[in-house]
Amino acid sequence: MAFAEDPAPATAIGVDALWVMLGAILVILMQGGFILLETGSTRMKNAGHVAGKTIFTFGLCSLIFWAVGYGVAFGGGGNPILGLDSFFYDPSLAIESMYGSSVFFLFQLAFAGVSLSIAWGGFAERAKLSVYLIFAILFSAIVYPVIAHWIWNADGWLALDGAQDFAGSTVVHLTGAMAALAATILLKPRIGKFNKDGSANEILGHNQVYTALSVLLLWVGWFGFNAGSTVAVGDGFFGYVAFNTQLGAAGGAVAALLISWIIMGKADISTMLNGALAGLVAITASCAYVAPWAAIVIGLIAGILVFASTKLFEKLKIDDPIYALSVHGAAGIWGTLANGFFATPELATKVNIGQAGLFYGGGLHQLGVQALSILACGAFAFVVSFVLLFVIKAVNGLRVTEEEEIIGLDLSEHGAYGYPEQMRKDSSITV
Amino acid sequence: MAFAEDPAPATAIGVDALWVMLGAILVILMQGGFILLETGSTRMKNAGHVAGKTIFTFGLCSLIFWAVGYGVAFGGGGNPILGLDSFFYDPSLAIESMYGSSVFFLFQLAFAGVSLSIAWGGFAERAKLSVYLIFAILFSAIVYPVIAHWIWNADGWLALDGAQDFAGSTVVHLTGAMAALAATILLKPRIGKFNKDGSANEILGHNQVYTALSVLLLWVGWFGFNAGSTVAVGDGFFGYVAFNTQLGAAGGAVAALLISWIIMGKADISTMLNGALAGLVAITASCAYVAPWAAIVIGLIAGILVFASTKLFEKLKIDDPIYALSVHGAAGIWGTLANGFFATPELATKVNIGQAGLFYGGGLHQLGVQALSILACGAFAFVVSFVLLFVIKAVNGLRVTEEEEIIGLDLSEHGAYGYPEQMRKDSSITV
Amino acid sequence: MAFAEDPAPATAIGVDALWVMLGAILVILMQGGFILLETGSTRMKNAGHVAGKTIFTFGLCSLIFWAVGYGVAFGGGGNPILGLDSFFYDPSLAIESMYGSSVFFLFQLAFAGVSLSIAWGGFAERAKLSVYLIFAILFSAIVYPVIAHWIWNADGWLALDGAQDFAGSTVVHLTGAMAALAATILLKPRIGKFNKDGSANEILGHNQVYTALSVLLLWVGWFGFNAGSTVAVGDGFFGYVAFNTQLGAAGGAVAALLISWIIMGKADISTMLNGALAGLVAITASCAYVAPWAAIVIGLIAGILVFASTKLFEKLKIDDPIYALSVHGAAGIWGTLANGFFATPELATKVNIGQAGLFYGGGLHQLGVQALSILACGAFAFVVSFVLLFVIKAVNGLRVTEEEEIIGLDLSEHGAYGYPEQMRKDSSITV
Repeated sequence: MAFAEDPAPATAIGVDALWVMLGAILVILMQGGFILLETGSTRMKNAGHVAGKTIFTFGLCSLIFWAVGYGVAFGGGGNPILGLDSFFYDPSLAIESMYGSSVFFLFQLAFAGVSLSIAWGGFAERAKLSVYLIFAILFSAIVYPVIAHWIWNADGWLALDGAQDFAGSTVVHLTGAMAALAATILLKPRIGKFNKDGSANEILGHNQVYTALSVLLLWVGWFGFNAGSTVAVGDGFFGYVAFNTQLGAAGGAVAALLISWIIMGKADISTMLNGALAGLVAITASCAYVAPWAAIVIGLIAGILVFASTKLFEKLKIDDPIYALSVHGAAGIWGTLANGFFATPELATKVNIGQAGLFYGGGLHQLGVQALSILACGAFAFVVSFVLLFVIKAVNGLRVTEEEEIIGLDLSEHGAYGYPEQMRKDSSITV
Repeated sequence: MAFAEDPAPATAIGVDALWVMLGAILVILMQGGFILLETGSTRMKNAGHVAGKTIFTFGLCSLIFWAVGYGVAFGGGGNPILGLDSFFYDPSLAIESMYGSSVFFLFQLAFAGVSLSIAWGGFAERAKLSVYLIFAILFSAIVYPVIAHWIWNADGWLALDGAQDFAGSTVVHLTGAMAALAATILLKPRIGKFNKDGSANEILGHNQVYTALSVLLLWVGWFGFNAGSTVAVGDGFFGYVAFNTQLGAAGGAVAALLISWIIMGKADISTMLNGALAGLVAITASCAYVAPWAAIVIGLIAGILVFASTKLFEKLKIDDPIYALSVHGAAGIWGTLANGFFATPELATKVNIGQAGLFYGGGLHQLGVQALSILACGAFAFVVSFVLLFVIKAVNGLRVTEEEEIIGLDLSEHGAYGYPEQMRKDSSITV
Repeated sequence: MAFAEDPAPATAIGVDALWVMLGAILVILMQGGFILLETGSTRMKNAGHVAGKTIFTFGLCSLIFWAVGYGVAFGGGGNPILGLDSFFYDPSLAIESMYGSSVFFLFQLAFAGVSLSIAWGGFAERAKLSVYLIFAILFSAIVYPVIAHWIWNADGWLALDGAQDFAGSTVVHLTGAMAALAATILLKPRIGKFNKDGSANEILGHNQVYTALSVLLLWVGWFGFNAGSTVAVGDGFFGYVAFNTQLGAAGGAVAALLISWIIMGKADISTMLNGALAGLVAITASCAYVAPWAAIVIGLIAGILVFASTKLFEKLKIDDPIYALSVHGAAGIWGTLANGFFATPELATKVNIGQAGLFYGGGLHQLGVQALSILACGAFAFVVSFVLLFVIKAVNGLRVTEEEEIIGLDLSEHGAYGYPEQMRKDSSITV
C-alpha cells in the first residue's frame, strides 16, 4: 500500500465509479437508520432481535442478490419481464469495465437491501426468526428484482413505456411496503394492538432518540439513494437532484408537524419524524424531474398524507408497527404519481425518460404511465409476497406462540435480552 | 437508471461538485451528532422532545434558508451588509452552472443548520415548542445569513477587510453561541440548577454513550465542514485542511482530559468530550492558514479554555446545559483570534484572504481584523437574537410552566415520553 | 469561501486525494463503531468510561502518530525494520505533493487508531484510566508503526518478501488483537467471569442495539478501509475491492448465524454480529487478490471460525469481553493465510505484490510467505505489548481495585455514572 499520485489526467470512468461508490456507501449506511428506526419504534423486549436481524438479513440478501437477484433485475437478454444472465455475478465477465460494474452491482444491492428492510416493518415483534431467513431469500431473488427489471432495466416493459421513477419511490419503497402489507395481514396484529370493540391501542416504541437519529441517518443516506442514481458525475446534475431531495424532506417534516399539532392538539414526535421520511420517499421518484417549488409541494403533501394514512390503517385494523405502509407505501405512491403532475419538459428530456406532466402541458399521458406502473408493481409485489408468505405459513408457520410474543423475541428466539440489565431487574417491563 | 461509463476525461466542474456534495453530506450528518449531544447532555424526561425538534427545525431551516436566508447571505448586488437577490433559490437561474450552484446551496444550508443547532443549546429543557418554530425561522432568515454575508460573501464588509474565518469559528459557531446566550439569559436557568446561595448544582445528562458518539460523529462531519470549505478539489489543498483539523481536535481532547484530571482529581468525561469539540471549533477558522504545530497549539489551548470557561459561566449563574457558550463561543473566539497570531504568509497568500499573523512577522494588523470581526459579529448575533427573543417572550412567552418543566417536555409538549417503558415504571425518574 | 467552478480538466492528483480523503473519513467513522461495540458489549456501570476513553485515546494516538509513529511506519531511509524520518510530520516538506501527503497521513493515522481501539478489547472493564493513556502512547509510537513498516513500507522486510495484506488483516487486526491478548493475560479475567471450578459465566453486554448498529457502522467504514487502500482512483479497481468486501461480510454473518443456530439451538445475536465482523476482518487481507466466490468462502469460514474461537478462549479461561481475540485475531490470521490459497495470478499481478495461491497453481510459496508474516507480526506485537504492559504493571499498576471494579469505572475513574438516571434509582444495577 503505497501512495504515488497519478500524473495523468483523471478519467471519467474512475470518477463515475467514485461517485457511485459513495452512493452505495450512503445507501448501505441506511441499514443503520433502519436498525434504529425499527428498534426505536418497538419494545425493549424485542430490541436485540429487531436490531440483530437487520445485519443477518442484509448479509443473506447480499449473497442471494449476487447469485440470483442481480441477474433477474439487470441481466440482459432483451426480455421485458426478467433478466436472463449475470447470475453468480462476476464483474470480470461484464461487458463494461470490470470495476465500474462492481460498484454498479454494489449500488443496486444496497437498494435491494433497503427494500427488504422496509418489508420487515410488517413482520415486527411477532414473526419467527426462520421466516426472516426464508423470506429474505425469496424477496431478494424474486420480488424486488422483477420490479427493478420492469422499471430500471432498459429492456423492462415499464421502462419502455416511459415510467419515471428516478430512484425508486415505486421500485424500492412501494415494493417493500407491499411485502410488509402482505406480511402484516397474514401475521395478524400484535397482541394488545386492537380491542374487541375494534378500537386501537397505541403500542409505543421504546426510544425516540433512536427514531430521531434514524431519520437523520436515512436523510443523509438518501443523498446517495437519489443523487447517486445519476450513476455518473458528468456536469454535476446529481447536485440538483440532492437539492430537490433536501426540499422534499423539509416539506414533509414541517407539514407533518403542523398537521399533527393542528388536529391532535399536540405536535406528535412520531408523526413529525414520519413526515420527514414521507417527504424523502415521495421526492425519490421525482427528484430529477421537477422544479424546486414542486419538490417542496411534493414533500408538504407527503407529510400530510402520512398522517392521514396512519389513521386510516389503524381504522382498517391493520397493524403497522414501523409505519411502513404509510411512509413507504402511501408516500411512495404519491411520489410516483407526482411526476405525472410536476415533471418539466426540460428535465424529462435531460433524464431522457417519459414526458412532461399535467401542469407543464403534458396532458394526462405521463400521469397514466405513472398510475400504470404503480398498479402493476404494487399488485405484483403484494400478490407474490402474499403467496410466498402463505406457503411459508402453511409449511413452517409465520408467528411465534402467544407466550413467546409476550416474553419477547429476544428471549424466545435468541435466549437472551438485548438489554439484560434493564430487563432483569423489573419483570413488569417484560410484558 | 443505467450505468454506462463516460469515455470522456473527467471535468473539474463535476469533480468540484462531487467534493462539495460530500462536504454537504458530512455537515448534514452533524445534525445526528447534535441529536446525540443534546439528548445525552439532558434528562430522560425531555429526550424525545430534544431529539425530535432537531429534525423539524432542520426542515424548517431548509425552507426558510431557501426562501430568504441564502439570498441574504450569498445574493449579489454589491451590498456590504446583506445580499439582495437569489431569494426562493432556483439553481437554474444561477450565473454559474445550475448544478454546481445546487451543491453550493446545499453546503451553505448545512452550515446554517449547524449554527441553528448550536443555538438550541441555550433553549434546552425549558423552552416552549412554539419558540423553536418561531426562532428557527428568524435565525435562518436574518441572524445567520447577515453574518455569513459579512465574512463569506465577496461583497461583505468584513471580507473586504480581510477577515480570516475559513470555515466559520465566528460565522457558524460564535453566531450560534451568541443566540444561545441571548436565549439562556431570557429564559433563566432550569429549575434546580442554582441554589439560593448562588452555588450551582450539576444536572447530569442521561447518557454519555450518546455524547461520546456525538463527538465522534461531529468530528467526522467536521472534515466536510473544514476541508469541504475549499469548495474545490484543485491540487488537493483540502487534504492539508483536514490534516490540521485532526491535529486541532486531538490537541483539544488531550488538553481537556489532562486539565480536568489535574485540577479536579478526576478525569471528567464531559470535559474531555468538550475539549475535542473545542479543538474542532477553534481550528475551524484557522485550519487553512496555519502550520501543523500551530494547529496542535490552537487545539491544546482550546481544550484548556473550554474547561475554564465552563467554570466561569457557572460562577456567572448562566445555565448552559449543552456547553454551547464554552464550546462554540469561547473556543470560537479563540480560534478566530488565533489566525492573528499563527497565520503564515504562504497560506494567507494561498487562500488569498488577509495577511500573516503576529508570530510570522505580520505585526498586529491581522489580529486587529480578527478582533473586529469577532466583536462585530458577536455583538450583532447577540443583540439581534436578544431583541427577537424579547419580542417572542412578550408576545408568545418563552418558557413552559414550572409544572410542565418538572414533568418534562416529552409529556407536556408532545403527549408521550420518548422512553415510555423506562419512564412509566418508576415515577421517581420523571422529576 | 466562494465557489467558482474550475474550467480546467480534473487532475488525477486531486481525484486520488479525494478518494483517499473519503477513505480516511470512513475509517475514522469506525471509531464510532468501536464506541458502540465496546459499550454495548459491557455493563452499564462502565459505559461512560468505555465510550469516553475512545475519544481521548484517538486524540492521543493522533498526536503521537504525528510525532513519532508515522515516521517509524512510512519514513524513508531504506531500513527494512523501521523508518528513520518524517517525524513531527509536516506535509509541506514531503517529497510528493504536500496535499496528497496530507491525506495519506490522515488515512494511515485512521488505521493506527483502529488497531488501538481493537487492542482496548483486552483492557475492558478493569484497567486503570492511566494505563489507557500510557499504552496509547506506546502502541501508537512503537507497536503498530513497526508492523506497518514491515508490510506496507516498500522498504519493509515483509514487503520485500511479497507478503500480501491488502488492507491489514495482519497489520491492523492481528496487531490489535495481540496487544489485547497481552493485556487480558496480564490483567487477568474480570471478577465473576470464571468460577473456581474453571467454568465460565456469561457477562452479558448491556445493549444489543448498540452492538448491531456498531457492526453496521464498521461495515460501512470498511469500504474506506479496504477499497480506500487502493489509494488511487485509476480505473476504479477500488470498486472490485469493495464488491469482495461486501461478499466476505455477508458470508461471515450468515455462517455465524447458522452455526450458532445448529450447535446451540438458538441463533445467538452476539455470534451473528461477530460473524459479520469476522468476515470483514478476513477479507481485509485478500479483498484485492481473490475471485468473488473465494471472497464468499473466506467469509463463511471466518464466520464459523469466530464461533469456535470464542468457545476456545473461554475454555482457556482467557477473558475477551469484546471478542477482540476471536474477531480480529483468529479471523485476521485466517484472512491473511487465505491469500496463500485463493490469490489469483491476474490479481497478484495487478496489485503487484506476491504471487498466486495454492489453488491457482502457485504452490506453497505464497502460503509460506503469508504464514511467516503472521508469525513474525503476531509474535512481535504480542511480545512487545506484553513487555510494555509488564513494565507498566510493575511501575503504575494495571488494574483498578476490586471495590472500584465492582462499583464500576464510571464512578471510580470519572466520578459520575454515564447513565446517572438509570443507575441511581436502583442500586442493584450497579453491581
